[in-house]
Amino acid sequence: MGNRKRKTVDESRSVMHRLVMPEDSNTLGTLMGGVLMHWMDMCAAIAARRHSNTYAMTVTVDRIQFVGSVRVGEVVNLEAEVTRAFRTSMEIGLRVIAENLDTGEKRLCASTFYSFVAVDRDGSTLPVPEVIPETDGQKKRYRDAEERRSARLEDAGRIREEAEAFDRQQF
Amino acid sequence: MGNRKRKTVDESRSVMHRLVMPEDSNTLGTLMGGVLMHWMDMCAAIAARRHSNTYAMTVTVDRIQFVGSVRVGEVVNLEAEVTRAFRTSMEIGLRVIAENLDTGEKRLCASTFYSFVAVDRDGSTLPVPEVIPETDGQKKRYRDAEERRSARLEDAGRIREEAEAFDRQQF
Amino acid sequence: MGNRKRKTVDESRSVMHRLVMPEDSNTLGTLMGGVLMHWMDMCAAIAARRHSNTYAMTVTVDRIQFVGSVRVGEVVNLEAEVTRAFRTSMEIGLRVIAENLDTGEKRLCASTFYSFVAVDRDGSTLPVPEVIPETDGQKKRYRDAEERRSARLEDAGRIREEAEAFDRQQF
Amino acid sequence: MGNRKRKTVDESRSVMHRLVMPEDSNTLGTLMGGVLMHWMDMCAAIAARRHSNTYAMTVTVDRIQFVGSVRVGEVVNLEAEVTRAFRTSMEIGLRVIAENLDTGEKRLCASTFYSFVAVDRDGSTLPVPEVIPETDGQKKRYRDAEERRSARLEDAGRIREEAEAFDRQQF
Amino acid sequence: MGNRKRKTVDESRSVMHRLVMPEDSNTLGTLMGGVLMHWMDMCAAIAARRHSNTYAMTVTVDRIQFVGSVRVGEVVNLEAEVTRAFRTSMEIGLRVIAENLDTGEKRLCASTFYSFVAVDRDGSTLPVPEVIPETDGQKKRYRDAEERRSARLEDAGRIREEAEAFDRQQF
Amino acid sequence: MGNRKRKTVDESRSVMHRLVMPEDSNTLGTLMGGVLMHWMDMCAAIAARRHSNTYAMTVTVDRIQFVGSVRVGEVVNLEAEVTRAFRTSMEIGLRVIAENLDTGEKRLCASTFYSFVAVDRDGSTLPVPEVIPETDGQKKRYRDAEERRSARLEDAGRIREEAEAFDRQQF
Repeated sequence: MGNRKRKTVDESRSVMHRLVMPEDSNTLGTLMGGVLMHWMDMCAAIAARRHSNTYAMTVTVDRIQFVGSVRVGEVVNLEAEVTRAFRTSMEIGLRVIAENLDTGEKRLCASTFYSFVAVDRDGSTLPVPEVIPETDGQKKRYRDAEERRSARLEDAGRIREEAEAFDRQQF
Repeated sequence: MGNRKRKTVDESRSVMHRLVMPEDSNTLGTLMGGVLMHWMDMCAAIAARRHSNTYAMTVTVDRIQFVGSVRVGEVVNLEAEVTRAFRTSMEIGLRVIAENLDTGEKRLCASTFYSFVAVDRDGSTLPVPEVIPETDGQKKRYRDAEERRSARLEDAGRIREEAEAFDRQQF
Repeated sequence: MGNRKRKTVDESRSVMHRLVMPEDSNTLGTLMGGVLMHWMDMCAAIAARRHSNTYAMTVTVDRIQFVGSVRVGEVVNLEAEVTRAFRTSMEIGLRVIAENLDTGEKRLCASTFYSFVAVDRDGSTLPVPEVIPETDGQKKRYRDAEERRSARLEDAGRIREEAEAFDRQQF
Repeated sequence: MGNRKRKTVDESRSVMHRLVMPEDSNTLGTLMGGVLMHWMDMCAAIAARRHSNTYAMTVTVDRIQFVGSVRVGEVVNLEAEVTRAFRTSMEIGLRVIAENLDTGEKRLCASTFYSFVAVDRDGSTLPVPEVIPETDGQKKRYRDAEERRSARLEDAGRIREEAEAFDRQQF
Repeated sequence: MGNRKRKTVDESRSVMHRLVMPEDSNTLGTLMGGVLMHWMDMCAAIAARRHSNTYAMTVTVDRIQFVGSVRVGEVVNLEAEVTRAFRTSMEIGLRVIAENLDTGEKRLCASTFYSFVAVDRDGSTLPVPEVIPETDGQKKRYRDAEERRSARLEDAGRIREEAEAFDRQQF
Repeated sequence: MGNRKRKTVDESRSVMHRLVMPEDSNTLGTLMGGVLMHWMDMCAAIAARRHSNTYAMTVTVDRIQFVGSVRVGEVVNLEAEVTRAFRTSMEIGLRVIAENLDTGEKRLCASTFYSFVAVDRDGSTLPVPEVIPETDGQKKRYRDAEERRSARLEDAGRIREEAEAFDRQQF
């Protein structure tokens, strides 16, 4: 079932429900941003691994804006899917939906894009299958992925320069 | 000591060392992005709370690019400081430095900016002290914070629209 | 949206993906039964709370047989749904499917039934909506729930006697 | 001390005390069923490993009925012992006793039986020592183990059929 | 059962078995000292709470020397009991025994003394029952507790001075 | 950068900030001693590994006296540094400072000394660099380390005798 040349978006689709526990919250009883980001990364990683059938490492997370807060006792629903593949890397679209179990009401809390790189056991990059977008939404995200990728590559220059400046300053 | 009108950047500076444990890593023995993002958020939150002396909630995380990977047994050093305050919100600059304990070598892994909002126990926003930048680096980050903030506000429009579209589609 | 008299099975359906981490495994690198049972209970609890829109507490777990083992790096997919309601209690059917991310292959690992009771904040029992089974599978599980419930009630006598014997022997 | 042909029940007896912490509880402040099942499995596994002096994997957990609930701040006492061995598998009897530290009062919360299989590092099954029951209770549980085992084997047929049906339906 | 004037040592005796997991170990596969100290404190706290039937807070831990190391897959057995009470405080004796599950062999890893103070919900100290030592070992530990207590009180002076010096230096 | 013959105290200096979460606290809402000791050990271990550039295992923790208690929502600041080296072992000085984020006030909670031994991957001891004390405080701690070491060696005799007595009594 692995090693295929092309895969649909739905084949990588991953869904996680997490009940917000006291240990996930700050002293105000609301879910901490960092805990949610941990869950988001795990959900995105499963989508990336489902698409690539290899190991996958987080390379970039685009800006995350949290809309409102999530309370202890609510459920967080995470949904991730690969939007497009670029030879050895994949863009994953992810959204976070909070659910109030007392009322059944749901609301969007965050949505962002990740890029993951596919690697083998030694960390060398590996090619990944192409993505076949099917619905209108999938096709739009597929097209726009190109532009988001350019923005990331530009930004990657900045951080690499910073890393080199850091190296120089050590000695 | 709390409730002051202005504070230096150094007063909010927060430092965390974390030894990377097997439970923090994926099957390749490298630190998972999501675990690191959890630590980053906690370090940024401490800086925000030190500056505001109130509760603080994560509102935005700018794009994060990971440079290289961190292995089990290495130490991650996190450094955060408030770069600028905007009435009830704060921008926090954060960088992540990996350290190899066998060789003593250090390298920059990531750097990004967070925005936090100061709130009271009921979640109502509260004004925060102004920031006094002192060094050249602090002054540059203070100046540039304005532009980063505009980019965030623009992006906030997009996610709020998405959230409203999500609400409509539910019914 | 809450407080409805009748709900379909699909409205309570809950899905969780969990990546098996080293901390979830024993020294053989396979998922520990107890960790999996913890995840199963959380997934079943979300289904119960979605159906009842109240608090829900685990009362019974029927026999669980594990088919084969799950390895670190595989994904566990949990699926739960309310099969039938009995005034203040609900039966939840749950199955566990392991997924090999290298090959995409999936296999059934376990399936069992839980009963949960709906309670308010003080722990008093509350009535729950009736269940409307729609598919053939849902209708079969709905019918058979009666018999499984009888078996549980019979068994409940045994444990209550044991508890009383324990009380007497203390003094 | 290992590799013996026969062992008493007492040699495998395992005892665990766990203080119920907020992180172990749901929003009602009572111990979650899934957390307790995790602890139960660990306690049973230690008894199985003590008897077999090999690795041991959970194969079956019989029905668990929870009597009442356990609150944060109470102690859970778990007691497990091997009741009988069947060539490469062992039945473990386990009971859970809650203890109120303010009053010293104890009460039985659950009791069930596990079966574990003894395996070597590669997962191949290994023979285990026979069990020598000594007290009247131990002798009764030893005798009844035969019948419980038959019930499990019958049930094992059902789940194996389900697993095969799941396999067929995938292709 | 609570509120008694005198209690035997055995009434407070607490036993915990913990299977050492990868997450409890450092990169060498041996149990980390800090994880073990966490378990030791929980076991001692249960003994203290059993004796006092109130809340109990750790005040002092005497020197801990670790004899050898404990490996992943071994079991740690912790045993704690109140050795003597001093109005509102208790001394708890604790020892740690490692057990190799492959051979059944056990070895002493550490032994030390804790002092806990009994407090009510607001943190005010409360009187605790006296201790009745019964065996020769219990009687010896009861007698020697006096001397250990003097050493602790002397040491308490040092740390309190340090704390005050720290306060002064802040302003 | 590793393998040097002598190192200053500052080169091993390690700092950790930890926000006290509900999961770190007992039912009174104060930080549990055992959780704090876990953090202390990790901070001391990082200092030891920074000085030795090898693996390091906790051998001894001197008496710890807790001054006052730390509440959920406060920050714990841990500071550790190698005070002196003895061929294959190191003494680490560590202090714990609690910080109230609402007022900015800090207070000393505990201070103690650890000894760690440097080992290679197989657990064999390794020589460590000498320590160069620079400030008056560092020089005092360097001098006094000799005496603290004698006290530890004396105490080590006691625990080793206990361990041997334990061995004998098993057979």
